[in-house]
Amino acid sequence: MSATEVVVVGGGIIGLSIAWRCAQRGLAVTVHDDGGDDDDGAWYAAAGMLAPAGEAGFGQEALTELLVESAGRWPGFAAELGRGSGIDVGYDRTGTLTVALGADDLAEAQRLWAYRRNLGLGVSPLGPSALRDLEPALSPRLRGGAHAPDDRQVDPRRVVAALRAVLGRAVVRRRVDVLPAGVPVVVAAGFGTAALTGLPVRPVKGLVLRLRGEPGLLRHVVSGWADGRHVYLVPRADGEVIVGATQEERRDSTVTAGQVLELLRAATDLVPELGECELTETVVRHRPATPDNAPLLGVHAGGPIVAAGHHRNGVLLAPVTADLIAELVATGKADPMLDAFAPGRFA
Amino acid sequence: MSATEVVVVGGGIIGLSIAWRCAQRGLAVTVHDDGGDDDDGAWYAAAGMLAPAGEAGFGQEALTELLVESAGRWPGFAAELGRGSGIDVGYDRTGTLTVALGADDLAEAQRLWAYRRNLGLGVSPLGPSALRDLEPALSPRLRGGAHAPDDRQVDPRRVVAALRAVLGRAVVRRRVDVLPAGVPVVVAAGFGTAALTGLPVRPVKGLVLRLRGEPGLLRHVVSGWADGRHVYLVPRADGEVIVGATQEERRDSTVTAGQVLELLRAATDLVPELGECELTETVVRHRPATPDNAPLLGVHAGGPIVAAGHHRNGVLLAPVTADLIAELVATGKADPMLDAFAPGRFA
Repeated sequence: MSATEVVVVGGGIIGLSIAWRCAQRGLAVTVHDDGGDDDDGAWYAAAGMLAPAGEAGFGQEALTELLVESAGRWPGFAAELGRGSGIDVGYDRTGTLTVALGADDLAEAQRLWAYRRNLGLGVSPLGPSALRDLEPALSPRLRGGAHAPDDRQVDPRRVVAALRAVLGRAVVRRRVDVLPAGVPVVVAAGFGTAALTGLPVRPVKGLVLRLRGEPGLLRHVVSGWADGRHVYLVPRADGEVIVGATQEERRDSTVTAGQVLELLRAATDLVPELGECELTETVVRHRPATPDNAPLLGVHAGGPIVAAGHHRNGVLLAPVTADLIAELVATGKADPMLDAFAPGRFA
Repeated sequence: MSATEVVVVGGGIIGLSIAWRCAQRGLAVTVHDDGGDDDDGAWYAAAGMLAPAGEAGFGQEALTELLVESAGRWPGFAAELGRGSGIDVGYDRTGTLTVALGADDLAEAQRLWAYRRNLGLGVSPLGPSALRDLEPALSPRLRGGAHAPDDRQVDPRRVVAALRAVLGRAVVRRRVDVLPAGVPVVVAAGFGTAALTGLPVRPVKGLVLRLRGEPGLLRHVVSGWADGRHVYLVPRADGEVIVGATQEERRDSTVTAGQVLELLRAATDLVPELGECELTETVVRHRPATPDNAPLLGVHAGGPIVAAGHHRNGVLLAPVTADLIAELVATGKADPMLDAFAPGRFA
C-alpha cells in the first residue's frame, strides 16, 4: 500500500504534524478539523514540557523508548517548522528543576531520578540551598530537588499556529461523523477517535492555570511534588507561568473550585511568590487516553490508519508520530517502533 | 438651607439610594455616574449580607447604632423599591449560620456572639451535629457555630438595577472632576470622594468569587472562620454561591492567585462540597474606607454634602444613609444620628 493523497481527520497537534510530514513527502493532504471551537484540542492546555522520563510510567519500556526517540527529533522538528512558518515555536533548552516539598515527596522524586539515570538521562541532585541558588523563588521549606539538564520545552500554541501556517488551505473546517471512503485516511481525532473507530480512547480531564507575574520570577521549568500533589510550573519569557495539571476521569469541562484550589496550593507551596501573580486563565481540556495510556499508532483492522490516545505525551510525541505515520501512509511500510502500539492490541 | 434640586455625584448604591429618596421628596435630581465601566462600584462585588453585628468593630457604638437602625429600615426599603421598580431585590429573611473550624476560630466566634447578645440580637449556639442538621453540607470537622436568626440578605446587583429603573433618565453618564457650582451637591463617589473633596477616603481592595453548584447545596448564609481566615458563603436560589471577601490595602485590581487560594481554601474547609462547584467569576472591587472605617455623612466645610466611606457596610447602610441625607438636602436639618459621622472629624 502506498498513496498519493491522504485525509487526516483531526486538527490537533498530532493530526497537523502528520499532515505536514505527508505534505513534505508530496502527498495531497486534507486535514478535517471539527470546526467547532478552534482551540478544543488537548494541546491548547498543554504546557509543552518535553521530559521523556517525566511522564512514562515505570515498566513502560516501549513507550519510554518512543518518548526518548521523539525528544531527540524535537530540535530538528522545531527548527524546520520555524523556518517553514516564520513562527518561533519557543523551543527552549533550559533544563528542568524537579523539587520535593516533604519527605514523602522527596522519596517519590528520588524514584524518578533513579529511573532517569537508568535511561541515561542526566540528573543532578541538589540540596535546598543549591536549589535556591539556581532558583531563588523556590520555597525555603523544600526538602530537596534535582536539575534535569536534558529536559526541554516548546510553546504548544505556537507549534499549532506554525503547523496551521505551513499547511494553509489544506486545513478544512469540517466535522466528520463517518470516515471518508475511497481515500487513505488517518484518524487523529483525540478522544473523538473512539466514536469514529470503536477503539478504546477515553477523555482524561485536565485543568491548567495561567498566572502572570514579573518576567524572571522563575528561570527554570519546575516540576514538583507538594504533599503528594504533582504540579509543574512553566515560565514563559513574558512573565506568564503555566501551572498544571490535574487529571480526572471525567468528561465535563467545568472549572471546579476544588481543582483550582489544588493547583494553586501546590504551586504556592513550591513558589510562594506565585501568590502575588495574577490568575489570568483557567483552561480545561481532555487528554485522549487508552487502557494502557500508550498511543494507538498504525493500521486499524484493515481500514484507516490511527494515531491517537497520546494522553499526556501528545506534544512530546508529535515529531516521531508524524514521521512514522507519514512513512506508513506514503510507503505502506510500518517501522518496527510501531509494533508495540498496534491499535488492535486491546481487542 | 433647603433645596428644590440636587446633583448627586456617584452612581453606586449609596448615591442612587440618596437620589431615589430625594426624588420622592419632589426634588429635581441628577445623578452623575462616572460613565466608565458601569459596574465599577463596590456594590458589584458585595454579597449583600445584612448583619448589623457582623461588621462593626467592638467599641464602635455610634456605627453599630447606625447599622442596627439601617437593618430595621431594610424591609420597608426593599418592599418599596420592589413595588416601584417591578424588580425583586432578593430580600431574604433566612438567618445566618456563623461557624468556626478550629479552637482559635471558635474563640473568635464566641466573642462575636457575646457582642451580638449585648446588642439584643438573637444568637443560638449550636454543636457540630446540630449545625449539620441545619446545614448538612458543613464540614464534620467544624468545632461549633451559632444561628443568627436576625441576619438578612439582599442581592446588591438587583438593588442597583431597581434603583436605576426607578431613577430612569435622572442617571447621567458623566465623569465629574470638579464639583458643580450653584446647585446643591451630594458627593457619594466612593473612594473617588477623596480626589473631589480632599477627605481621607482610601480604597480597600476586596476579591469575591462566584461558584455555581446544585441549588440547595447550602440553605443558609454561612459566615465562618477557618484557621484564622474569615469567609462568608452566600447561596442564591439558582445554585450560585458567593464567596467573599479578602481585604487588602491596595489600589490595584489584579485577581491574584494567592487571594483566590485563600478564599477557596477557607470555603472548602467549611463546606467541602464547594470544591465540586464551578468557579464562574472572580471580581475585584474597592471599598471606600475612612481612618476609623465609619462613613462620612453630612455637610463638608460649608460646601457639598458628603455620603461616602461606607467600607464593608455600603449595602446595609444604604437605607438609613438615603433617608438622613435626603432629609438634610431637602430641609437643611441634620438628624442627630449624623453627629458621629461628620466629614470633618479627621481634620
